[in-house]
Amino acid sequence: MSSRSELANAIRFLSIDAIEKANSGHPGAPMGMADIAEVLWRKYLNHNPLNPQWPNRDRFVYSNGHGSMLIYSLLHLTGYDLSIEEIKNFRQHHSKTPGHPEYGYAPGVETTTGPLGQGIANAVGMALAEKTLAAQFNRQHFPIVDHFTYTFLGDGCLMEGISHEVCSLAGTLQLGKLIAIYDDNGITVDGTTNGVFTDDTALRFESYHWHVVRNIDGHDPEAVSAAIAEAQKVYDKPSLLICKTQIGYGSPNKAGTEKIHGAPLGSEEIKLTREKLGWSYGPFEVPKHIYHEWNAHEAGQRKEDDWNRLFAAYEQKWPKEAAEFSRRIHQQLPTDWHKYADEVIQNLQANPVRLATRKASQIALEAFGQRLPEYLGGCADITPSCLTTWSGSVPVHEKDSGNFIHYGVREFGMTAIANGIALHGGFLAYSSTFLMFVEYARNAVRMAALMKLRHIMVYTHDSIGMGEDGPTHQPIEQLASLRITPNMRTWRPCDQVEAAVAWRSAIERMDGPSAFSLSRQTMSQQTRTAEQVKHIARGGYVLKDCSGQPDLLIIATGSEVDLAMASQLKLSEEGYKVRVISMPSPETFDSQDAVYRESVLPKAVRPRVAIEAASAQYWERYVGLDGVVVGMTTFGESAPAEVLFTEFGFTVENVVQKAKSIL
Amino acid sequence: MSSRSELANAIRFLSIDAIEKANSGHPGAPMGMADIAEVLWRKYLNHNPLNPQWPNRDRFVYSNGHGSMLIYSLLHLTGYDLSIEEIKNFRQHHSKTPGHPEYGYAPGVETTTGPLGQGIANAVGMALAEKTLAAQFNRQHFPIVDHFTYTFLGDGCLMEGISHEVCSLAGTLQLGKLIAIYDDNGITVDGTTNGVFTDDTALRFESYHWHVVRNIDGHDPEAVSAAIAEAQKVYDKPSLLICKTQIGYGSPNKAGTEKIHGAPLGSEEIKLTREKLGWSYGPFEVPKHIYHEWNAHEAGQRKEDDWNRLFAAYEQKWPKEAAEFSRRIHQQLPTDWHKYADEVIQNLQANPVRLATRKASQIALEAFGQRLPEYLGGCADITPSCLTTWSGSVPVHEKDSGNFIHYGVREFGMTAIANGIALHGGFLAYSSTFLMFVEYARNAVRMAALMKLRHIMVYTHDSIGMGEDGPTHQPIEQLASLRITPNMRTWRPCDQVEAAVAWRSAIERMDGPSAFSLSRQTMSQQTRTAEQVKHIARGGYVLKDCSGQPDLLIIATGSEVDLAMASQLKLSEEGYKVRVISMPSPETFDSQDAVYRESVLPKAVRPRVAIEAASAQYWERYVGLDGVVVGMTTFGESAPAEVLFTEFGFTVENVVQKAKSIL
Repeated sequence: MSSRSELANAIRFLSIDAIEKANSGHPGAPMGMADIAEVLWRKYLNHNPLNPQWPNRDRFVYSNGHGSMLIYSLLHLTGYDLSIEEIKNFRQHHSKTPGHPEYGYAPGVETTTGPLGQGIANAVGMALAEKTLAAQFNRQHFPIVDHFTYTFLGDGCLMEGISHEVCSLAGTLQLGKLIAIYDDNGITVDGTTNGVFTDDTALRFESYHWHVVRNIDGHDPEAVSAAIAEAQKVYDKPSLLICKTQIGYGSPNKAGTEKIHGAPLGSEEIKLTREKLGWSYGPFEVPKHIYHEWNAHEAGQRKEDDWNRLFAAYEQKWPKEAAEFSRRIHQQLPTDWHKYADEVIQNLQANPVRLATRKASQIALEAFGQRLPEYLGGCADITPSCLTTWSGSVPVHEKDSGNFIHYGVREFGMTAIANGIALHGGFLAYSSTFLMFVEYARNAVRMAALMKLRHIMVYTHDSIGMGEDGPTHQPIEQLASLRITPNMRTWRPCDQVEAAVAWRSAIERMDGPSAFSLSRQTMSQQTRTAEQVKHIARGGYVLKDCSGQPDLLIIATGSEVDLAMASQLKLSEEGYKVRVISMPSPETFDSQDAVYRESVLPKAVRPRVAIEAASAQYWERYVGLDGVVVGMTTFGESAPAEVLFTEFGFTVENVVQKAKSIL
Repeated sequence: MSSRSELANAIRFLSIDAIEKANSGHPGAPMGMADIAEVLWRKYLNHNPLNPQWPNRDRFVYSNGHGSMLIYSLLHLTGYDLSIEEIKNFRQHHSKTPGHPEYGYAPGVETTTGPLGQGIANAVGMALAEKTLAAQFNRQHFPIVDHFTYTFLGDGCLMEGISHEVCSLAGTLQLGKLIAIYDDNGITVDGTTNGVFTDDTALRFESYHWHVVRNIDGHDPEAVSAAIAEAQKVYDKPSLLICKTQIGYGSPNKAGTEKIHGAPLGSEEIKLTREKLGWSYGPFEVPKHIYHEWNAHEAGQRKEDDWNRLFAAYEQKWPKEAAEFSRRIHQQLPTDWHKYADEVIQNLQANPVRLATRKASQIALEAFGQRLPEYLGGCADITPSCLTTWSGSVPVHEKDSGNFIHYGVREFGMTAIANGIALHGGFLAYSSTFLMFVEYARNAVRMAALMKLRHIMVYTHDSIGMGEDGPTHQPIEQLASLRITPNMRTWRPCDQVEAAVAWRSAIERMDGPSAFSLSRQTMSQQTRTAEQVKHIARGGYVLKDCSGQPDLLIIATGSEVDLAMASQLKLSEEGYKVRVISMPSPETFDSQDAVYRESVLPKAVRPRVAIEAASAQYWERYVGLDGVVVGMTTFGESAPAEVLFTEFGFTVENVVQKAKSIL
């Protein structure tokens, strides 16, 4: 039988060899954490490499993702579909082993990590999803949702502000099945943590009401094992296990220094490391007996089989709940969804009302909520302003089976936690704040797009129209920034019909996030034919047309559609043929076929005006070198909204004048 | 003589009345913190309302800026140039009293606050600037730099992740003259902090090595005063004074609830509050005896006079240091600056070398560092990659008079701290990280632009050219997002000459930040005439021309200029007349006069290709509806850089093909 250190060395040398071959990567962390990983993955982790989708598997998140060879080694050794060829192709194009662990590449990678601190945040989301789903579905003697969420993290994750937001909330929400293991090695890229990071991390986490185990020797399997066992027994607090490790453990000349953090060891040092650790095998060579002891096929399948039996019995007793659980885990919509959604939208078009689009969004949330018990929404402490609760909302801090999270003033944490909820499965995650504060959460928004997560982001107070709070709260460039993020879909609806279509599109979009840009101020509802209502989902459509070829196209979104319509009327009275295009989702419009796009925006018509109370530059791509944009090019000001709209040229008079300048 | 509570009530009723008149604002915080503010501002704060620029004044930062009427009341009452008319115009257009405190509007507002957590971060920057400037300039018996930095903050600031980053660093750097006063009122917008924010904040700050005073009654002036006096005596630790307060103190029916957080009290409740607090004066009425006791003209002028005498004596003894101190405080460049900078740039053009622009940036940093002892730079733990140290760099954690901050993995904190350094004065602040991680710092970048701060942001690894680390680290939309931020200037240089011009422009830009986008990979140096070298500073210029009117314009930046030049050569060989425009700073180019812009980009020439390994959408504004962009429309991948450039079409072959498709 192999010794535990020999098993850990398999991780070390797969990592060393892959990084050497790629000539880039981070060997320090996998070498330092190998002993811990061996204990967790061989003794505690409930998973089945033969079915990485098993719903009740423990979740493992490698938050310090730059040490990606650690997780690739673990997946390879335990028998996931990740061959030695993939390990040899580390960091190469089209491999399953990119530089940082990417969700959707290697099976068993539960989330994309690399941007520090977000892995632990995703893990908090997974643990919260587990707790909530368990409360919603488990029945006495039938714990069909019952797993741990483990995460590894390093100094970088703990320095990042997001770790504060999410660990504070995890403590408050008593996420007892979250177990975090801290690689306390005292080394960062710049050198030692002295003079840079001197927190008493144990005390810090106790201030969050975590269970903390201090001073674990991260190279002593018994000590690590005892700490994990202890943590599993603490039900009402998340656990932080602080493991003292030596970065690059085993390298005679580089261990314990920043030299091994992010660069290959080099052939000479590799030779010396092999000697020191007594690893006599060649590059990428793992002997059979070591593979054998790592392999988790049998144990994993047994665990899943046990669960399958449990679930079958549950299904017998609670068939409706079981069916609903399966539907939600497989991210399917209710059977009558499309019919229901059509009715909701038609009904809204038939009953016009003047309102703010944040209110319009709430109406859609409420209507669709009747069919979607999978909502798990939340807001970063401005719920009464964002209007993201509905009649079925119950705070999770009041009831474990609730469906709404008061995230506190934690925008980045909220967004990354909601990503974790989406990754876990079983829920439709939505989050909300003011559009300006998407900036606090910016990289988590991007990670949702990169990971193709269904996560709906509701952003209100979307322009100078929010008025007196002034330029710190008035978005200008934020909307454009979201629109140009790959795989993001934004919607800036102009009334309750477009808002409902936006929600519906976002709900039906299974391979990426959607963001809504919503007003604080009210606007009128537009008249539409059934055909026009149908076209909203295409992202842009002709809202008001003229006869024949237009002299001018006016493109507008959201709160500026009213202004576009009034300007069209004025210009028509003066004899111009003007078409108004409402374009709530430019990315969606861009993804339509060329024929449709040409039918809306004929290439031959060059006089074009775009109107949006946001960054003007974005719209130059639609109006071209001969068009003009009525938009924002400066920061806003603190004043009542109507004053600002006049000040910044959002008036019929100005639009008409600008239009004439190009006609 | 007025009682202290009467003096505090003046703040309460100015706030109540202004918010009522504006019909919006946040009365809860000013009413709750009035007693604390009275103690700090009347007993401890060294300031001179007659000269808000006095360099040695204590700094006061109101981090929970939504309660802006607190600071406006204080400035008005102590005698700053902020009349009662301005108070009456709270939140109105062109007033000095916008909804949130804006730097540059009311005198005495030291920073713009509102986006939570950033005020405390700015305060950390100011305290660090004070400590560093003191170490650089003070001499025995001549403490010409010797002031405290005080900040008020609330639950929101403490929930935000940035508070962790900056308070952790403040403790590590032992910023003893930073005194933070926490308004512990237990109420947020969503309701009580129960179930949302339950940190043991005292313990948390002790884990950061702060001096913490617990359980101060925030409505007991003696208790508050004793805590401040105690904090002033702790030299090696920042202090957190935790004051228990009642939000909206004095309102019989709304105090202590979220109802008073962010809405006017209403006339009936105002009447009741007047009765309860015994305030018999009318709206906006402050009796003379209360004005008299608040007025700080005499005391303030006396303090400044004392300092002026000290500085005069210092000037006698150390004239060179005194002159340098004045130069730096007034943000002036050395007298020989322009001549020196010209020489540096000419010399670089004359000595071509192939290198990465991150290295080119370091060469400029080094060259200009010879004349700029005011550098106070730093990096978020990737200093060896960003190359933002130079031969004169000394870490502040090793020597108090140092000039480089190892910020740790704290991008948002770094950026907001550097804003605080810029606000304090006496330094040229620069910060650095990978371009991707600007996203972690996004709103602090914006705040620098909004506040018109000279803060240079050095972002490296600026495209898929960073290679194997993959899409989490490969910027796509980040550069465009920076460019469309009002008052931001970005530079994406293509070689060491453009890099030096970028640094020079940023150093000379006194009214806003600049951001550099720099490559990890190497590129060649371009040939230029003296005229072309001069034109770099205009943001865009003709790098390679053809004879007569061009058939095609190729616009490129940074690492893609080489590709543009090679494509031009190929197309020229095929008989096309092609002009290449290097456009390192589109915003700078856009700000040039129309004649210059037309001379570079003739409106008549519609076949245009833009090349940049970043978001393609941005460039559509330059190429119009008839042009084409060779750019990125998806996320990148993990692979060696050269593989990715080929994969994504950054090849002569593809550029030529795209060009021909529009010729």
